[in-house]
Amino acid sequence: MSCVSRIIDVKESLWKDNEERAARLRNSLRSRRVLMVDLMGSPGSGKTSLLLETLRRLPASLRAAVVEGDLDSTVDAEAVEKAGWTAVQVRTGGFCHLDAAMVGSALETLGFGSGGMGTGEPPFDLVFVENIGNLVCTAQSDVGASLRVAHLSRPEGDDKPLKYPVMFRTSDILVLTKADYDEVLTAGGPAAPFDAGAVRERCRFLNPALRIFETSCRTGTGLDEWAACLIDETRGYRRSP
Amino acid sequence: MSCVSRIIDVKESLWKDNEERAARLRNSLRSRRVLMVDLMGSPGSGKTSLLLETLRRLPASLRAAVVEGDLDSTVDAEAVEKAGWTAVQVRTGGFCHLDAAMVGSALETLGFGSGGMGTGEPPFDLVFVENIGNLVCTAQSDVGASLRVAHLSRPEGDDKPLKYPVMFRTSDILVLTKADYDEVLTAGGPAAPFDAGAVRERCRFLNPALRIFETSCRTGTGLDEWAACLIDETRGYRRSP
Repeated sequence: MSCVSRIIDVKESLWKDNEERAARLRNSLRSRRVLMVDLMGSPGSGKTSLLLETLRRLPASLRAAVVEGDLDSTVDAEAVEKAGWTAVQVRTGGFCHLDAAMVGSALETLGFGSGGMGTGEPPFDLVFVENIGNLVCTAQSDVGASLRVAHLSRPEGDDKPLKYPVMFRTSDILVLTKADYDEVLTAGGPAAPFDAGAVRERCRFLNPALRIFETSCRTGTGLDEWAACLIDETRGYRRSP
Repeated sequence: MSCVSRIIDVKESLWKDNEERAARLRNSLRSRRVLMVDLMGSPGSGKTSLLLETLRRLPASLRAAVVEGDLDSTVDAEAVEKAGWTAVQVRTGGFCHLDAAMVGSALETLGFGSGGMGTGEPPFDLVFVENIGNLVCTAQSDVGASLRVAHLSRPEGDDKPLKYPVMFRTSDILVLTKADYDEVLTAGGPAAPFDAGAVRERCRFLNPALRIFETSCRTGTGLDEWAACLIDETRGYRRSP
């Protein structure tokens, strides 16, 4: 499998470049007291829906903006802007994850200065990066965020931490979305139920520090708790030395 | 974004190597009248469930085997073997898609000869490759299959052809899985319904030749029709010059 080895060698070098840039970006944002959050998960795991519900719950004193990543289209940025928030769309044209350079450019568009690493009073306190829908590659690329949030929707199944461990190992927070799906399944007929306990156990094995939330944008389950955690994170971040 | 350009340059060269190997593998399998099918889609889109239902519907005269791709674990290969079929698990250890070299090695394990490109009577007539759950990278990597099948589950949403066009542009067949999800949503409360008509229209724009099936492994919807199509494909393939 020499082809694979070559890809891995090349990727390691490029990842190292990206990691250095991501660290610089993170330090720059930290020095300006800006919290950047990387939102990751499979396509359709409910990232955009949860983000819109989260934005609605933020206090007016927190200035938030969104960087939307997609291969193509601007539908997510449009949805965010329609809800009254500032958004920048990054279209990767086929590329499978965002990296620190792409996010730095988006931050520059948002007014954070050159490569997102300007100085002085920042235009926003909180930046959400909605990454490409991808449970694999986004986990392996540092965009410069200080908080990494994985999303897993119940319809995806409870075996995902076994099959895609990197995402669950490297995230700070896991949000289990579409929490209403189980009653839906029970109503609809026999099906393998989603075992949230098994997910928690598998994640505890991979990443004991991972914090886990359960939410449903349809029923409202867990949304206030999740938003309160994020507001706390932002306030703590703004106070941190 | 020089980092991105470098990745793209490097990927182009590696992809070229892979494409050549994939073409050789495809020609070799074709000359032995073996149909290899690449099953792609997001994590949790229902690939394994549909595969198990498909295997059950194959006539005994068709000898089928499965190559399972995952970052880690052997749960899918175990499920296939438990159902009575031959399976080989490829664990990529973090790599985001299968390529022709990995699949060639798996075929070698299945008895197809060196790199999967041996000669003479093949051990199987039909090989399913269940690719890594990834709506982006798998679409860009040729594993040497002659039939490319994309899966999209209703819970993922009908905007996916807009946001991830490559998968829908490069596949031969699209299976819309979890067809029962709409009634489930209606029963569960208000939610944006999945618009299958919009998906068909978006796909027609991207890929007019794409054939589309709608299935549900819970209700049985469309499974016989889908399996019949695949059996026809295999028979046609075995007769082809």
